[in-house]
This record gives sequence, C-alpha cells and structure tokens, in this order.
Amino acid sequence: MSSKFYLHKIANKKLSAGRPWIYIDEINEYDGDYENGDIVEVYNDRSEFIGKGYINDRSKITIRLMTKDINEEIDINFFRKRLNTAWSYREKVIDTSSCRFVFGEADFLPGLTIDKFEDYYVIQISTLGMDKYRDLIVNVLTEDFGAKGIYERSDIGTREIEGLEQKKGFLTEPFDTMVQITENGVKYLVDLENGQKTGFFLDQKENRKAIHRICKDAEVLDCFTHTGSFALNAGVAGAKSVLGIDVSQHAVDFATKNSELNGLSDVVKFECHNAFDILPKWAKEDRKFDVVILDPPAFTKSKNTVNGAKRGYKEINLRGLKMVREGGFLVTCSCSHYMSEELLKKTIEEAARDAKRQLRQVEFRTQSADHPILWSSDESYYLKFFIFQVI
Amino acid sequence: MSSKFYLHKIANKKLSAGRPWIYIDEINEYDGDYENGDIVEVYNDRSEFIGKGYINDRSKITIRLMTKDINEEIDINFFRKRLNTAWSYREKVIDTSSCRFVFGEADFLPGLTIDKFEDYYVIQISTLGMDKYRDLIVNVLTEDFGAKGIYERSDIGTREIEGLEQKKGFLTEPFDTMVQITENGVKYLVDLENGQKTGFFLDQKENRKAIHRICKDAEVLDCFTHTGSFALNAGVAGAKSVLGIDVSQHAVDFATKNSELNGLSDVVKFECHNAFDILPKWAKEDRKFDVVILDPPAFTKSKNTVNGAKRGYKEINLRGLKMVREGGFLVTCSCSHYMSEELLKKTIEEAARDAKRQLRQVEFRTQSADHPILWSSDESYYLKFFIFQVI
Repeated sequence: MSSKFYLHKIANKKLSAGRPWIYIDEINEYDGDYENGDIVEVYNDRSEFIGKGYINDRSKITIRLMTKDINEEIDINFFRKRLNTAWSYREKVIDTSSCRFVFGEADFLPGLTIDKFEDYYVIQISTLGMDKYRDLIVNVLTEDFGAKGIYERSDIGTREIEGLEQKKGFLTEPFDTMVQITENGVKYLVDLENGQKTGFFLDQKENRKAIHRICKDAEVLDCFTHTGSFALNAGVAGAKSVLGIDVSQHAVDFATKNSELNGLSDVVKFECHNAFDILPKWAKEDRKFDVVILDPPAFTKSKNTVNGAKRGYKEINLRGLKMVREGGFLVTCSCSHYMSEELLKKTIEEAARDAKRQLRQVEFRTQSADHPILWSSDESYYLKFFIFQVI
Repeated sequence: MSSKFYLHKIANKKLSAGRPWIYIDEINEYDGDYENGDIVEVYNDRSEFIGKGYINDRSKITIRLMTKDINEEIDINFFRKRLNTAWSYREKVIDTSSCRFVFGEADFLPGLTIDKFEDYYVIQISTLGMDKYRDLIVNVLTEDFGAKGIYERSDIGTREIEGLEQKKGFLTEPFDTMVQITENGVKYLVDLENGQKTGFFLDQKENRKAIHRICKDAEVLDCFTHTGSFALNAGVAGAKSVLGIDVSQHAVDFATKNSELNGLSDVVKFECHNAFDILPKWAKEDRKFDVVILDPPAFTKSKNTVNGAKRGYKEINLRGLKMVREGGFLVTCSCSHYMSEELLKKTIEEAARDAKRQLRQVEFRTQSADHPILWSSDESYYLKFFIFQVI
C-alpha cells in the first residue's frame, strides 16, 4: 500500500491547474510509512485524489507527481506509454533525427531528461525517485526505440540535494561517444561523454534556423559560440564571413573541427576571446558587423542572483549593440528561467538606450518545440530569443 | 522657416529611446506660426534638437516625427529613401511577392501603411500630416517600384480625429481590384476594394505557416476564418478535414471560392456560424477536433474596453479548448494591442483552468517580420499567437 499524503487547504491556482510539484509546506499530514523514492498518493484537504508521485523529504519539492490516474502503476508499461506519447509529439512538431525526447515535467516525467542524437541516447536523472527507474527506461529505449547505445550524463550538482551522487557512464555496451548529427543542414560532432550538459544544446534548433534569413552576405559575429552552432548556421545561410568567439580554447578547437566538417573553414572561423573583454576593445577600433549574436550561458540559476545576472545581460547587450552596423541585426537570448521575459526585455531596452540605438524586433521565439512549455510548471519556460534590427 | 516646438523637462524614457510621438501635454511652448499638417521642429527643454515631424493640434498625438536629421527635407527624396529602406528590409526577411511594405511608425513613416499584393499596392493614410504626401508616395511606388496599380483604403474612422474624411479609390488608372496572390503555397483572391482593412491580413503569414506541422492528417476547426487563410493552410499541410466558420455569409462565400481556387474543396469547407453560439452547441454534442484555431477580430481597440475584451477572449478560449481532443492542439491569438501579452496569457490560463485542461506551449509568435515591432513605439506590437498542445 502506498502511503497517503494530505495537503493543507490552499488556494494555489498553479496546483489546481496541474502543477506537478508538491512543496513540503503544502503537506498537512500523511498516513502510512514511506521511504524516500517511494511512490505515494496525494490528496487535497477534502481527501480528493490529486495524483501519484515519488517522494523525497530532503527536497523542498517533496513530491513530484507522475500520474493523475490512481489506477496507473509506475512500471515498465507506464514508461513505455509516456515515452511513446513523448515520441509521437516530437514526430509531429520537429525533425527527430536528433532532438530532446523527454523534457522532464513537461513530459510528465519529472527528473528525467532524454536527448536523442541519431541512434544514440543520453539520459540525465536529477532525482532520487526517478533514479530507481533507470533500468526500465534503458529497456524501453533499447527495445521500443532501437537505441544503439545509451550514455548517462547525471553529472549535475542538483543530484546532491536529493542525496544522490553525480554519475556518468555507459548504460549499454560502450560505443563511440563522438556522434555526428545534422541539424538545419549543418553537421556537428557531438561529444556525448564530455560535452556540456548532454553534449549539445538542442533547444536552440529552431532559433538557429531563424537567423538564416538575416545572415546571407553578412559579416557575422557569434559570441559564446561554444561548439559553433549559430556561427555554422550563419555559414550555411550564405554569410560573407563569420567569426565565432568563445572563452574556452577547447570549445574553439571543437567548433573549428565542426567548421571543417561542413567545408566552411574559409568562411566560418573561430577565435578564443572573452566576449566581455574583446567587444569593448573592438568597439574602440570601430570594428562593426552586420549581425551580432549573443548566446551567453545562463548568468543566473537562482532567484537570488538575478540582479547580478541582469547587470551581465545589460553589459553584454550594450557591448553587442555597439558592434552592429546601422540597419544590421542583433540576435540575443537568455537561457535562464529566472531572467524572466519581462526582465530581459527591460534589460535589453536599457542597453539600447545606453547604446543610443533603436531596436526593431524582427522575431521573438522561445525554446524549440521539443522542449514544450508546460504552463502549470513555470520552470519549463526558460529560453527567450530575439532578433532585432538595430537602427 | 519651420516653427519650433520646445518640450517640457520630462524624464520620458520612451521619448529618449526614440518614441516618434510628441503628446500635446509634453509641449511647453513654440515659436513661429504653423498650420496643421506642417512640418515643425522639436527641441527638448535644453533646446537640443530632437527631430522634425508634422503637427496636428486636433490630436493628442500632436507631432509625429519623420526624421531626426535636421537637414533632411521631407520631399520626394525623403520618401524614396524611406521606401527603399523599407523594401530592403522586407527583401531580407520575408517573401515579398505580397507583404506589408510600410508599417507606419515602425518604418519611420507615421500615419502611412502600404501593402503590396503582387504588382498592386494598397495605401492607407491615417493622418493629416501624411495626407499631404499622397502624390509623392504614388510617384515613388510607380516610378521606383513599378506599381501596376495603386488603390487607397483610407476608409478608417480614425481619420476623423485628424479632421479628415474617410476616403477610398484608385490613385492610378483603374484596374481589376480582385488580385490573386500566393502565400505559403496557398492561393487567394484578395479584394483590394472591399476586403477588410487593406484586403488581406498579411500579419499572420508566418503564423499560418507555423500551423502546418500540427495539421497533417488532422481534423481542423478554424473559427473566425474570414477569407479562409488558416483553414487553407491546414488544407495544404495535409489535414484530413477542415471546417472554417465565420459569422459573415459573404466571408464564407469568399473563403469557399479560395478553397476551390486551391483544389481543396473536398477537404476544406466553410459554414456560416457565430463561434460564440455554435461552439457550446457542438460541445454538448461532444464534437471534437484535433486542431482548433481561434483568430478572432480585435475585441478591443482602446484601453477602456479591455475588461470586456478579456471576457470575450476568455469565453472563446474556454469554448475552443473544450472542442480539442486530448493531445490535440489549440491555436489562439489576439490582434489587439491593448490586450497585452501578459493579460492574454493570464486570460488563456484562466480559460484552461475552467476547462480543466492542461496547456503545453509548442510555439509563441508575434506578427510577421514585415510588421516589425519598434520598441520605442509600444503600439507597433499588437499580435500575439500561441500554439498549445492540450492535455
């Protein structure tokens, strides 16, 4: 018998709208023993069933709901069903040769991320409750989806909150973890074992495509280029020249290899620079570009550091704006959930005012459709992406 | 000599960010005579030049700035330059076979709208100041852009605020005002003379394209279909069946013609219904669709009627949500500037809660890129467009 958790009487609209998280302070009492990681049942203050999910009382997010069907068992059939649903959705909305296959809460699988790179899969498990199902997930991926190889990239600090160790390694027979993928007509080598996060930032797929129309014949600067993805999209779109910069020499070397792989070495080049340092220097030299792309790492991963992050976003946008020729374009984004759309807009507006430039918004986008935003789960919305013409 | 207008000391961030409007209460004093419609010079309280624009003291928006260059004359060369800049931008960002060519303030031509339908142009002039330049604009369109015909659709109530009469008619030799265009692979007849606004809602071009991926093999309901544009896009995307509804029999007949024109009569059909009435009826009959599209007219065109509009948006979204099969899609939008993105989100969220449905956002978009959003001109942002999966 699952133990039963009863919530306080609360008027939480997000919860009634389907939020998949139960916070510790929302729990009034419980009935029956449990161990962390167990599936428990959740009821509201009127003893109406809300859902079933796994518990971890070490976390402020104490219960993460897996199902709203009291009769649904959390077994291999559950995972088979969830993964099939996730897959059908991706097949409808996106090129699935490489894509995010499972996006945690937004696919009703809290704590689980699965990325697909051709026939290879990377999984990341962030919670104790989900950690128990690793073998089932591997089974489904292998049997139902023909995974040729699965690699785990649970080397994330947040596992420690859950009382788990960081973890990485093969979940199938070993394979070559340097996988070649194609996205928007661009080829990439993806390093599943040692690349950032799960190896590649799939969330910008549609945004990288969106820059094609402004890059033809342009001189392009791509800051924080990482493995060169925006730069290479500018290249295949017909840019006159593309310079990608990154503070990591390893990233620059990797991006350079990707440029060679696409036969774009003459057009798309990479240099190792800190954007915060080099942009002011180039501004003094009056160096200009037709398109400047800013895809910085998240400057904040919590509410507490938002102010510092805002300063960072303002600074980099101000620097970037100064490098854009009149009538050229600024592509700018934030992948931090805590840097809200509203706050980011305000920050960019301030940067434009300081740079004495006017912005004409060409396009606004969020993360790609394989990272759907579950409205009842605020945290699932994180990527904001703008294309501006700069006057 | 132009008369000179001096503003009060004001800390208006929008104005310093480049807002092209001067409100009557921002003006401190002026020097020199003027007539309404004249070009005047604007200075801040420190007598620093801000820009030149045309005045109409009958309007709360008393001066609309045309240029920030004190030496730039507002003559045919000015319009040639502005239109060339507008055209270069569209050529870069959008299929220009038919597109919005000039989007008022956002193209630094306040009061002027130009839409291009193949080789024919529709112009709309909303202000006294711009009304004086009609002949220059016609000249540039004819001489520089090879316009085969130009039709004026200044049949808009807002002209009366400016002391102007509503006006429509040929600005060139008469031509057949039923023009065939192609957009996203869909053919349309556009009625330049009697269609709504300038004949066709070009602002949803990219949004219509965005629904293609969710419409294949789907049963689609398109509410407020007007001339059938979303419905026909669903049809060319491979929908199993499409039903477009509109309260106007004239619209239904027109849309039906467009369906025939595309050889889609077997798939894309139209019926005359009021969406607010028929959706509850169909809901009672438990009728469902894979995709429901809601593209209502602006329920509000001013700040004062926002509350009523919110009720309208909530009602229609609630009704629409109930018609979507589990795992199907809701496409919903608002073309009202005063229904802000934030308010619309809140309203849709409420509708979803009442409908007891969960929303997964697949995509969020704004108006198409040929209607750029000038950040210093709030009013240029008006169209919000969502695709949700409904769980």
